[in-house]
Amino acid sequence: MGKGRLEAFSDGVIAIIITIMVLELKVPHGATWDTLLPLAPVMLSYVLSFVYVGIYWNNHHHMMHAVSKVNGGVLWANLHLLFWLSLIPFVTGWMGENHFSAIPAAIYGVVLTMSALAYMLLEKVLIRLHGANSALALAVGKERKLWLSLAIYVLGIAVSVLHPWLSVSLYVAVALLWFIPDRRIEIRLSS
Amino acid sequence: MGKGRLEAFSDGVIAIIITIMVLELKVPHGATWDTLLPLAPVMLSYVLSFVYVGIYWNNHHHMMHAVSKVNGGVLWANLHLLFWLSLIPFVTGWMGENHFSAIPAAIYGVVLTMSALAYMLLEKVLIRLHGANSALALAVGKERKLWLSLAIYVLGIAVSVLHPWLSVSLYVAVALLWFIPDRRIEIRLSS
Amino acid sequence: MGKGRLEAFSDGVIAIIITIMVLELKVPHGATWDTLLPLAPVMLSYVLSFVYVGIYWNNHHHMMHAVSKVNGGVLWANLHLLFWLSLIPFVTGWMGENHFSAIPAAIYGVVLTMSALAYMLLEKVLIRLHGANSALALAVGKERKLWLSLAIYVLGIAVSVLHPWLSVSLYVAVALLWFIPDRRIEIRLSS
Amino acid sequence: MGKGRLEAFSDGVIAIIITIMVLELKVPHGATWDTLLPLAPVMLSYVLSFVYVGIYWNNHHHMMHAVSKVNGGVLWANLHLLFWLSLIPFVTGWMGENHFSAIPAAIYGVVLTMSALAYMLLEKVLIRLHGANSALALAVGKERKLWLSLAIYVLGIAVSVLHPWLSVSLYVAVALLWFIPDRRIEIRLSS
Repeated sequence: MGKGRLEAFSDGVIAIIITIMVLELKVPHGATWDTLLPLAPVMLSYVLSFVYVGIYWNNHHHMMHAVSKVNGGVLWANLHLLFWLSLIPFVTGWMGENHFSAIPAAIYGVVLTMSALAYMLLEKVLIRLHGANSALALAVGKERKLWLSLAIYVLGIAVSVLHPWLSVSLYVAVALLWFIPDRRIEIRLSS
Repeated sequence: MGKGRLEAFSDGVIAIIITIMVLELKVPHGATWDTLLPLAPVMLSYVLSFVYVGIYWNNHHHMMHAVSKVNGGVLWANLHLLFWLSLIPFVTGWMGENHFSAIPAAIYGVVLTMSALAYMLLEKVLIRLHGANSALALAVGKERKLWLSLAIYVLGIAVSVLHPWLSVSLYVAVALLWFIPDRRIEIRLSS
Repeated sequence: MGKGRLEAFSDGVIAIIITIMVLELKVPHGATWDTLLPLAPVMLSYVLSFVYVGIYWNNHHHMMHAVSKVNGGVLWANLHLLFWLSLIPFVTGWMGENHFSAIPAAIYGVVLTMSALAYMLLEKVLIRLHGANSALALAVGKERKLWLSLAIYVLGIAVSVLHPWLSVSLYVAVALLWFIPDRRIEIRLSS
Repeated sequence: MGKGRLEAFSDGVIAIIITIMVLELKVPHGATWDTLLPLAPVMLSYVLSFVYVGIYWNNHHHMMHAVSKVNGGVLWANLHLLFWLSLIPFVTGWMGENHFSAIPAAIYGVVLTMSALAYMLLEKVLIRLHGANSALALAVGKERKLWLSLAIYVLGIAVSVLHPWLSVSLYVAVALLWFIPDRRIEIRLSS
């Protein structure tokens, strides 16, 4: 079974997720700065989620590149990942509308945690299919970074009750963790 | 006529169907647990429908893999299937918002029934095109499971007036029926 | 310049158009038959538009199959067609919500007319690029049916003031005109 | 790393952006001309934005055609472009609903400016990867037109406080600038 349709379907779902988030930016009824300003937190949470979904697409792209075959287990592990990612627009809108208050910030962290676990599960299912010595198993070597991200998410959820803004800062930190080194490795590889 | 665009178009429509369902999870206006709790049934029905649409995508993926050509009849049989699947977000939202009450649970079953019939019709049209001895006709051998699913759907619709939760349990049972064995066959095949 | 991305982009836009129409089927707040019944005209107009968008996708699929190259003019003629098709969800919702009353039925006909003209323009631009003796020019031989459709649309718009239901019947007739013979030709060709 | 999935993902996101804009054309509740007329400015801004997103898709299509490889930097530069384009439906709806008044017209210009800058950045990242003497660097020779567009956008933002309609006219002028010559060059090249 080829990986082509799996990639195409995942691209489709991720493209829709990243785009429908913008629908939470509801068009204000007035035309003054006053009507635009309340949208600032919604906008901020949109930017954060856009970067997160972008990171997942990039990592998915990289991982699938080293994949040579898929089976039913992979299809379902992939759908499981897409399910958690599909909740990002909802938690983004909720967190943005409530100005990053405690419970929405915690739930946002839960969805990030579940997405990361789903990604790790997909990785495991793919490695089991390809073998521990496959190109895929070697290419996928970010285990440590995944565990660190998970730890920070859990910390973010824990502190949300007291300092939701600290939670959000932790989520931003994880996003930077994935965003910056990816480019550095890339440049080193391509030089 | 190639099957490439048919697959691409179906992937697109199914990706949109599976993703816009999440738009029924309306962002609540408060930031407390109280505002999140009423969303529980909407969330449950979302999970069920996500799994169903995932099953259809997986089965469609498998069936099209064995297909070597398509014609106008196939295009329309496929669009007919996509039509019934496109009603899933609507019935999902309706059933979720009304906490799995009688009529929405029945209508949900009707849409599942029609989707299953549309899938069987697509199968028939494809087998007629490829011949009864084709690889496709041999690969598609889940007739018994399809008829069993249909019977359970009809039972689900029938009991919805008295016990809508029983209907939903029956729909869940069919989803499990398709979810679990697919993986088992897969593993047996790949070993 | 290859036609691959043009097909992929068109598939994406048409898949979204055919699917977001279902968002006009607003989830009713009650769970009784009474709350479902007012949706009947919206549902009817959804079915009609689903078939129309399906016909455009099928014809687009057939025409692009015979295309070997595209240029800037083709890209814009194609976007022009997609623009008119993108208005179908709006006019579908408007016609359905107003139970097929006069002005919405007329505007629906206008969008169908403009879509047909845009399709003919795309055909012309493609034939100019490929030459009058190309396989494309021979494959595209439905000129008479296109003109007949246009005439019926104009008639439908004209009678909408007096008998909007007659207009809708005329639109249904054109849909059948495209739906039925396509299959017949196909079967004859494949035998 | 291949460019195929980058193109497919970009096509998906741009297809969704160009199509969800139409959701701002809210179905009016009456069926008279009076209920349709207030939608005229929303419609006008939809047409303008449709053409702009179409121009970006066309230019993206042309540029990626000359691209032979992508890296992490390209993926992010591309996502950055898609981010700004994803704000177009929001600013389109806001400008349309407020009949092209001052602040929405200015913000619309800001999003156009940022999109153009993001496009230039993507171009730079791609040329750095392919080399200054690559086919890509030669194919991408519209620098002057990009700078001219940027200057007109800034002018449009500046005059929006006094004459928002003049701003909109300037945006229309830039759209024509990109729309018309592209076809002329194309025709010259293909003759």
